[in-house]
Amino acid sequence: MHALAPTVPSIVSALASALAPGALITDPDVLAGHARDHAPTVPAGRALAMVRARSEADVVATLQLAHAQRVPVVPRGAGTGLSGGANAIDGCVLLDLSRMDRILELDAPGRTATVEPGVLNGALAEAVRAAGLFYAPDPSSRDISTLGGNVATNAGGACCLKYGVTGDHVLALRAILADGTPLAVGARTRKDVAGLDLKRLLVGSEGTLAVVTRITLRLLPAPPPRATLIAFFDTLPAAGAAVDALVRGEDLALVELMDRTTLGAVEAMAALGLDPDAAAMLLVQSDARDAEQVVRRCEALAEAAGGRDGYATGDADEGRMLLQARRMALPALERLGTPLLDDVCVPPASLPAMVAACERAAEETGLTIGTFGHAGDGNLHPTIVHDATDPASVAAAERAFDAIVHAALTLGGTVTGEHGVGLLKRRHLAEALGGAERALMGRIKAAFDPHGILNPGKAF
Amino acid sequence: MHALAPTVPSIVSALASALAPGALITDPDVLAGHARDHAPTVPAGRALAMVRARSEADVVATLQLAHAQRVPVVPRGAGTGLSGGANAIDGCVLLDLSRMDRILELDAPGRTATVEPGVLNGALAEAVRAAGLFYAPDPSSRDISTLGGNVATNAGGACCLKYGVTGDHVLALRAILADGTPLAVGARTRKDVAGLDLKRLLVGSEGTLAVVTRITLRLLPAPPPRATLIAFFDTLPAAGAAVDALVRGEDLALVELMDRTTLGAVEAMAALGLDPDAAAMLLVQSDARDAEQVVRRCEALAEAAGGRDGYATGDADEGRMLLQARRMALPALERLGTPLLDDVCVPPASLPAMVAACERAAEETGLTIGTFGHAGDGNLHPTIVHDATDPASVAAAERAFDAIVHAALTLGGTVTGEHGVGLLKRRHLAEALGGAERALMGRIKAAFDPHGILNPGKAF
Repeated sequence: MHALAPTVPSIVSALASALAPGALITDPDVLAGHARDHAPTVPAGRALAMVRARSEADVVATLQLAHAQRVPVVPRGAGTGLSGGANAIDGCVLLDLSRMDRILELDAPGRTATVEPGVLNGALAEAVRAAGLFYAPDPSSRDISTLGGNVATNAGGACCLKYGVTGDHVLALRAILADGTPLAVGARTRKDVAGLDLKRLLVGSEGTLAVVTRITLRLLPAPPPRATLIAFFDTLPAAGAAVDALVRGEDLALVELMDRTTLGAVEAMAALGLDPDAAAMLLVQSDARDAEQVVRRCEALAEAAGGRDGYATGDADEGRMLLQARRMALPALERLGTPLLDDVCVPPASLPAMVAACERAAEETGLTIGTFGHAGDGNLHPTIVHDATDPASVAAAERAFDAIVHAALTLGGTVTGEHGVGLLKRRHLAEALGGAERALMGRIKAAFDPHGILNPGKAF
Repeated sequence: MHALAPTVPSIVSALASALAPGALITDPDVLAGHARDHAPTVPAGRALAMVRARSEADVVATLQLAHAQRVPVVPRGAGTGLSGGANAIDGCVLLDLSRMDRILELDAPGRTATVEPGVLNGALAEAVRAAGLFYAPDPSSRDISTLGGNVATNAGGACCLKYGVTGDHVLALRAILADGTPLAVGARTRKDVAGLDLKRLLVGSEGTLAVVTRITLRLLPAPPPRATLIAFFDTLPAAGAAVDALVRGEDLALVELMDRTTLGAVEAMAALGLDPDAAAMLLVQSDARDAEQVVRRCEALAEAAGGRDGYATGDADEGRMLLQARRMALPALERLGTPLLDDVCVPPASLPAMVAACERAAEETGLTIGTFGHAGDGNLHPTIVHDATDPASVAAAERAFDAIVHAALTLGGTVTGEHGVGLLKRRHLAEALGGAERALMGRIKAAFDPHGILNPGKAF
C-alpha cells in the first residue's frame, strides 16, 4: 500500500465546495459519535470530516477528491459491525451511507428487490413480506443493520443453514471504485458465468475494494409458518450428535445452540424455565410445508441422541418467543460484564470439541464465557465476559479470545464465520493466511484502489 | 496483456529436462487430438507440446518454466467444454490435468470430499453415493467432465434450481499461480468471511487466473428417491406461467423444458410417445421426503396453468427414463445437422419471451433451432442446427446465435448461464461489460498472472 500524501489543499474545503450544503459534517461530537462500530476492544482514530451521502453522486465526488488527495475513506452504514471494520482512522473521511435508504424497486413477479445501501435489513424484510415474498438473510442485527453493511461483511445469521449467507442472495451490485469510477457487476439471473465473479469478490470485502451504492437482491416465495423444537442435553457430545442427526435428513431453517453458561445467564435475566444445569440447549425451527411433522421427528432424533425435556410447537408465535430466548443470549451475558464477542466457524463434526475448547478457555482465564450460535452451520459466538476497566481482566479476555480462535483453526475452522475481520481479527487472519495469499490480496486491492485510500488497515 | 516473448531457449527441451519421462508429449497427432474442446465453430491453434501432469509438482514445474519464458499455457481437463475455453493457442503448452484423478479423501462424517482436478464428476458422484451421501452439481456432461473443468467454468446443471451451481459446493481449493506459487483458499466450513473471497474468484475463471490442483467439495446427505411429472402446454406463456407457479411453492430439484422443435426431434429419434405438437413440455422432479405428493400437487398446478396430458410417477427408475428423454434433446437435434449450442439465462419471468425470441431467430434464418434447458432457473440452451460445410448456413447460424444472445441481454439476462465465455462468447461478453469492468478484470488478471501466460485470449 502506498503512503498517504499530506492533505494539502484541505480535503475538507474541497468537499465543502463539491457537496450539497449539509452533506459535510465536521462537528467533533458528531464525528466522535461515528468513530466506532459495536466492537468493544479495538481502537478508533479521529476523522477529519464525515460525508453524509444522499446519492451516488455524493459518493463519487467524495471518492474522486479523496483519491486525488490520498485521503483515507472509511465507508459506514449503521455502525453495527462487531469487528471494528467501520472504525475511524486518523485523518480519514467517514463516508456515511445510512441516508441512502430508498428501496428503489420491488419486482414481485421477478422476485428481486433493488435497494440503496442504507436500507435496513429489517425494513426490506418487512416490505418484502407485505408483498408476499421473503428476504432470507437474517443477521441478529437485522433490525438495526443496513443491507450495505450486510453485503460488506457477507453477513450470516441463523437461517443460513437452509438459505445460505448474504452473498448467496446478491444478484447484482453497483459500486464506486476508489477513483470515482462506477462499476456494475452481476445479473438478475439465477446463473451467470460471464467473466470473473467481481460480485462475489466485492461481497465481504469490508469496504476495502469499492463503495456499494446499489444492491439487487434475490427474493424467495414466502415460506410456511415455522414450527419449533427445543431440547436439553447433559453432555456436549450428545448435543453434537443430535445436531448431526437433525441436519442430516430434515428440512430445517435453523439449529441454534446455547451452552450451560448462556442458559444460566438467560435464566437469571428472564426466568423462562430453561434448564440452567443442562450442558446445552438446542433450538430447531422448520419452515417446511409439513413443519409440525418435521419438528416432531426432530424431537425423536434429539431424544435418540440423549436429549431430554423436548418441547415441540407448531404455533409460530410461540416459536418466535422461544427464539427470543436464544436472542437474549448476548444481552443476558452483557449483564455480567463487558462482552467480547467472538465468531468462529468449524466443520460441523467439530462442534462439541469447539464448545469444549471455549469451556477450557474459561477455566484457564477464570472468566465467564458463554457460547451460543448457529450450531447447524458450526458457527459459534463464544462471548467472553470481562471487566473493561481492569487491565488484567482485559488481558485475560484477549488471551481467551486468542485461545478460542486458535482452537477453531486447529479444528479445521476459520477465524471468522460471519462477523468479518475488521480490526479485531487482522492478526488472526494474518496468521491463518499464507504469504502467497496475503500478497495476492494486496495485489487485488491495488487493482481496485491503487492509492490504498479505501478503509486502509482493515480486513487484510 | 504483455506480448509473448520468443520461446528461446526452447520451452520443449526445458520441460523435457524438468519432467518425468512420459509426461511431455510432442506427437503432432496427439497434440491435434487435444487442440479442441466440444465447441464446434471456434478456432483452435497449434500447441508446441502437452504436459500430462500426474502431480502438483508437474504443474508447478510447467508453470515456472512457461512463466520464465513467457509461453502461453492452456489448462485442460476432459475437453468437454462448449465454449472453446480449452482450445489450443498457437505456440502454447497444453497442460492436461485429466490424469490427476485421485479422490484423495472422502470424509463421510464431515461430509466433504477432496479430489484432484481430473476426477470425473460422475466418478465422484458414484463414490459419494456408495458412502450414503450426495454430490449435487449435475452438469449434463457429468459422466465425461472433470471436477477441475466444472470448477473452471462454475458448471451448472439441472438441479441447480434446488442445490445451486458448482461454486456453491466448493469449500476450498489449492491452485498454482502463473509463476508456480501454490495458493490455498477457502475453508472446510459452511461460513467463512476471512479476507477476500479468492475461492469464488477462481471458480469460473476458465483457467485464466491459476491452475487448480486440489478441490474440497461439500457433500450432502443422500436425498430420498425422486418423483417425476411431465406435462404438455399448447402455448409458451402457459408453460411459463406453470414454471412460475411450480417454483413458487414446491420443493423441486429440477424443472426442465423442451420446446416444440426439440420434442419433434426427440420423437423422430426415439418414438417415446411425447407430443410433438405441443409448444413445450415441462419435466419436474422432486427429491423431497414427500416427493410423490409434491409432484401430484405440481400436476394440479400445471393443469391450472393450461397444461395437459400430465403424467406423474413416484417410481425413481421411471423418472430416470423420463429424464433420459430430456437428455436426448441434444443428440436428437444433432441428427438433423451440426448443432451450435447456445447458453443464455434470463430472469425466470422472461422465460416465455426468451423461447419466443429463439423461434423468431429460427424463422428469420430459416434454420432449425431447438430450445431446451433448465426452465426453473431461466437457463436455456437454444441449439442452432446448421450445415457446417456450407458457409451460408454457418453465417446464418452465427446470425441466429447473436440474435439469441442479444435477446437475452434485452430481457435482463446474461450472455452465459453455465457454459462459460471461452472463445465462443468473448465478443458478446465484451459488448455486455462496460469499460470499467473490463479494465478491472484485466488488472485482476495481472495480479494473478503478470505475464499473461494463463489461457490468454480466453474469457475476458
